[in-house]
Amino acid sequence: MTTMAPDFDDAFRAKFADLLIWRRDVRHFETRPLPKGCIERLLGLACLAPSVGLSEPWRFVLVDDPDRRRAVRENFLAANAEAFAQYDGERAKIYAQLKLAGLDDAPVQLAVFAEPEPEQGAGLGRRTMPETVCYSAVAAIYTLWLAARAEGIGLGWVSILDPEPLNRSLGVPEHWRLIGYFCIGYPAQVRDTPELVQMHWEKRSDPASLIFRR
Amino acid sequence: MTTMAPDFDDAFRAKFADLLIWRRDVRHFETRPLPKGCIERLLGLACLAPSVGLSEPWRFVLVDDPDRRRAVRENFLAANAEAFAQYDGERAKIYAQLKLAGLDDAPVQLAVFAEPEPEQGAGLGRRTMPETVCYSAVAAIYTLWLAARAEGIGLGWVSILDPEPLNRSLGVPEHWRLIGYFCIGYPAQVRDTPELVQMHWEKRSDPASLIFRR
Repeated sequence: MTTMAPDFDDAFRAKFADLLIWRRDVRHFETRPLPKGCIERLLGLACLAPSVGLSEPWRFVLVDDPDRRRAVRENFLAANAEAFAQYDGERAKIYAQLKLAGLDDAPVQLAVFAEPEPEQGAGLGRRTMPETVCYSAVAAIYTLWLAARAEGIGLGWVSILDPEPLNRSLGVPEHWRLIGYFCIGYPAQVRDTPELVQMHWEKRSDPASLIFRR
Repeated sequence: MTTMAPDFDDAFRAKFADLLIWRRDVRHFETRPLPKGCIERLLGLACLAPSVGLSEPWRFVLVDDPDRRRAVRENFLAANAEAFAQYDGERAKIYAQLKLAGLDDAPVQLAVFAEPEPEQGAGLGRRTMPETVCYSAVAAIYTLWLAARAEGIGLGWVSILDPEPLNRSLGVPEHWRLIGYFCIGYPAQVRDTPELVQMHWEKRSDPASLIFRR
């Protein structure tokens, strides 16, 4: 333990803001692999995320097996077809043009789960809000995302999936809660603007409109 | 839109790792206020977080009213007493010594909610996993947390609360989903080690033990 904190200066803060601005939900990847040991190192950083009661409920599953990857892809295609059927008119036209997963190209595929009842942490802080174990896993994912981006590596979050069969497809405990499935690799393009903005699906709101005072 | 990405170099990455290492769940605060406009600026950065379908479902509620703060404090005290009653022996002894909220000292109190059915985003990406709206709000919170830490400002996550009456106490829509309640201010101490480790409540796991291969 040390209390000699590093100095975070204006230059670092500006660069950190750039990191937030240039983080993207990447769906277009190059196929070239990550350097050896890279994903393990990034997952090590992800474990510095906050977790409720220090329970570290995140479970990282690196998916390499072609059959398992195929099952995930089929899961996504079915869920995406059902989602697409909900839209019509202009929305349907844009939706059809969106690339919503980088499952074919990204070299790394990662499923992240939360252990809903972790022994670690002895239950601290999650009695009234048990969903905090899932929130802890989200914090780990976002840490991974930012750390990867700082190395020029992109991440895309796939949420258009049916969680229950996914656990079976990946051979993980039934009670693990799927938080998300992630494509990771070098992005084909680097942008400061979300693809959903560029494709005219949605615009960002003024942050002031999301702040309330009581 | 620009594709002239900033260069993130080794020095930045090392400092970013320091930020992750030195982020803390702060429960001991100085009472001095934050600079004017600071929290709004930090919340602006928080809005750079990823959100499902660019729905930006986060709703930030700054709580200043003394009566509302008192109601939150009472909510916490009741939930904490019930939580404490679950432990005995050594665990109960440590629990009694933990300071689990900075509600008395932190100058800023912030409740963060998710709008479960945001119009923005037109439902993209959350049909099979509606919980992704909550996960988006978590990403915003964690962005705020890191950005604050980079300015020497600490954040403490209070999850020992009964969510339902909290919405009423704060006069926000019933259907908003409480993600967490946050104390924000200058930390009384700066540390690289979680308080739960120092107080012998819990230890961190080896990240390798949380990575699985399929």
